[in-house]
Amino acid sequence: MFLIIVLCLYVVGRVQGVSRPLVIGHRGAAYLPELTLAAQSMGYAFGADIIEIDVCLTRDNQLIVIHDIYLDGVSNVAEMFPNRNRSNGYSYVIDFDLEELRRLTIRERFRPFNGTQIFPLRFPSNSVIAFQLATLNETIELLLGFNRATGQQRQLLIEIKKPEYHSKYNKSISSIVLETLNAYNLKEPSDPIILQTFHIEELIHIRRNLGSKLRLFALMTWNRINESSSDYDFYRSEEGIRNLSNVIQAITPNLEFVVNYDSNGTILGNTNLTKWAHQNGLAVYPFTFRRDSFPGRSFEQLIQYFLHTARVDGFITDHPDVVLEYLRREMAAKDVIFIEQNSSSSLVSSMLILLFNMIMISKIIV
Amino acid sequence: MFLIIVLCLYVVGRVQGVSRPLVIGHRGAAYLPELTLAAQSMGYAFGADIIEIDVCLTRDNQLIVIHDIYLDGVSNVAEMFPNRNRSNGYSYVIDFDLEELRRLTIRERFRPFNGTQIFPLRFPSNSVIAFQLATLNETIELLLGFNRATGQQRQLLIEIKKPEYHSKYNKSISSIVLETLNAYNLKEPSDPIILQTFHIEELIHIRRNLGSKLRLFALMTWNRINESSSDYDFYRSEEGIRNLSNVIQAITPNLEFVVNYDSNGTILGNTNLTKWAHQNGLAVYPFTFRRDSFPGRSFEQLIQYFLHTARVDGFITDHPDVVLEYLRREMAAKDVIFIEQNSSSSLVSSMLILLFNMIMISKIIV
Repeated sequence: MFLIIVLCLYVVGRVQGVSRPLVIGHRGAAYLPELTLAAQSMGYAFGADIIEIDVCLTRDNQLIVIHDIYLDGVSNVAEMFPNRNRSNGYSYVIDFDLEELRRLTIRERFRPFNGTQIFPLRFPSNSVIAFQLATLNETIELLLGFNRATGQQRQLLIEIKKPEYHSKYNKSISSIVLETLNAYNLKEPSDPIILQTFHIEELIHIRRNLGSKLRLFALMTWNRINESSSDYDFYRSEEGIRNLSNVIQAITPNLEFVVNYDSNGTILGNTNLTKWAHQNGLAVYPFTFRRDSFPGRSFEQLIQYFLHTARVDGFITDHPDVVLEYLRREMAAKDVIFIEQNSSSSLVSSMLILLFNMIMISKIIV
Repeated sequence: MFLIIVLCLYVVGRVQGVSRPLVIGHRGAAYLPELTLAAQSMGYAFGADIIEIDVCLTRDNQLIVIHDIYLDGVSNVAEMFPNRNRSNGYSYVIDFDLEELRRLTIRERFRPFNGTQIFPLRFPSNSVIAFQLATLNETIELLLGFNRATGQQRQLLIEIKKPEYHSKYNKSISSIVLETLNAYNLKEPSDPIILQTFHIEELIHIRRNLGSKLRLFALMTWNRINESSSDYDFYRSEEGIRNLSNVIQAITPNLEFVVNYDSNGTILGNTNLTKWAHQNGLAVYPFTFRRDSFPGRSFEQLIQYFLHTARVDGFITDHPDVVLEYLRREMAAKDVIFIEQNSSSSLVSSMLILLFNMIMISKIIV
């Protein structure tokens, strides 16, 4: 019976043309300074199903939306607060109150100390525009307000930044994120909020100890980067994925874990990651698809490979407009089948993931 | 020879699918508080060819982007500066310095004194989001920065607000607008800037006395509204349009001047306005197409009527996403011909307008 409902929904989904991979706007969209409300707004307008953001705690326990735990890569903190840096030269979010951070202006990302832009052809980092840091509250209200005004159901993917670092300051960042969401009555798996973090044991803590029912995604990167104390080599093994599948709904790995490369960077084939994830009912949304990291047609070829061969369930991308445009063309050109065909259990898993995607991207057009 | 070039460009334009009416995002887009940088960003991301904004002068002669000459319809001025209103209860932009206006937060438009939202289903006017007023400088840098980051050529349509009102305070708002644009080297007709105002004699002044080469559009509304001292009944007559055609490139009339209605609001047919404008080489971009003013399918029918029967050259709309989606469907479905067929002079005029539109919406995709 359940399978029939899933199949019916799948057919309806195909007819409405919604059964495509999800597009997740990484820090909003690439054409404005990252994570500002304007960049997030741009991501929604491009049609991203989900906007991905990062949150850090201030000295006074407010949640601000910023990618780094320091302020020097995107703000004028060095001019505004010249004596507030630590011995390494960086000024840390956790050393400032929200009221102080409100006085900063935000720019396109640049190299601290020399000021050159990381992505030189993006929005000029020397603009006079007084972009501001956003709080998590503002970001939630942007999402809810946009959804109300458009009648659509866009979502927010919140990365909880470095829980271990925050706990050294006796701050439970996850608890404060959940309290903030609770105040907006956002706590069910059907609510338009998803949490992710690189510290995978924190996801288990959020599910088991903090009792959250929200959807949880596991970020994965290389152990050598020391992003957290989690052992990603284990968590992306078949056993690790099976263990995680009781706790989370998707993995959000570095895209280089999904494919094998040779020493020239040529894609040789898939790893087993997507297969194992799908066998365990988990969706796979790799990061970060950046057009300016793959010039010319190679970005399109990358998307194509991940779509047709790696068969991922979505893309975390700085360029949601480009990925969506590509997917629209692909969907119009041929009837793409994402269903794994070699086992019935993975067929069911794939359909569950499809259903999950369909629910997530269903938009009630007024 | 010139006609052949125009025809060739026209054919190229049709092949590339760019010869569609222009879509002008009115105050950005409807889903965020009007004229904020976030609302403008949203308009660009939806694909609007042009973003329309309004500018007023502050006490210290700075240009801010706001629709009214007072602050009470979109800001918290009443709470922030409770004693700065005039005898009618309103607080005027011209009575504040820029530094003061920077402290205001901007909301979705509401009725002053009772606080209810003008468009109740749009973005909540009680949001905690600290949207800010934008300056003209910031707005220009948003345009130029977005164009640089995307490789596209979007444009800005700047309405110079109430030149007569400003001159009572010995302020020449048009001169200050032109100085601001000059500082960005924006002064040629090929630059992505267009000026418009309801005070039509001011457009003549800008062209003849201030010597601007920028494209100029003439806004037209009912004389009884007293928006300016201009006689719109004359300017939208055949003689008035002919006189104006030496000075301006387009008219931007109230959409009710383009069609005739009966007492029930049913469209009876075209007025002569579009025909006269096209005969004189002027494009016609009526305002304001708002979906929430035309519920259900009536908005689509309105667009359809203005597209196929009134044959306007573009739409000034709060909902650029909806109009663009409609136009894309129409363009895909049939080969829409916008060329007037009853006279060769109007054929050339129409082609010039088409060429103008094609240049304006040509986007250099990287």
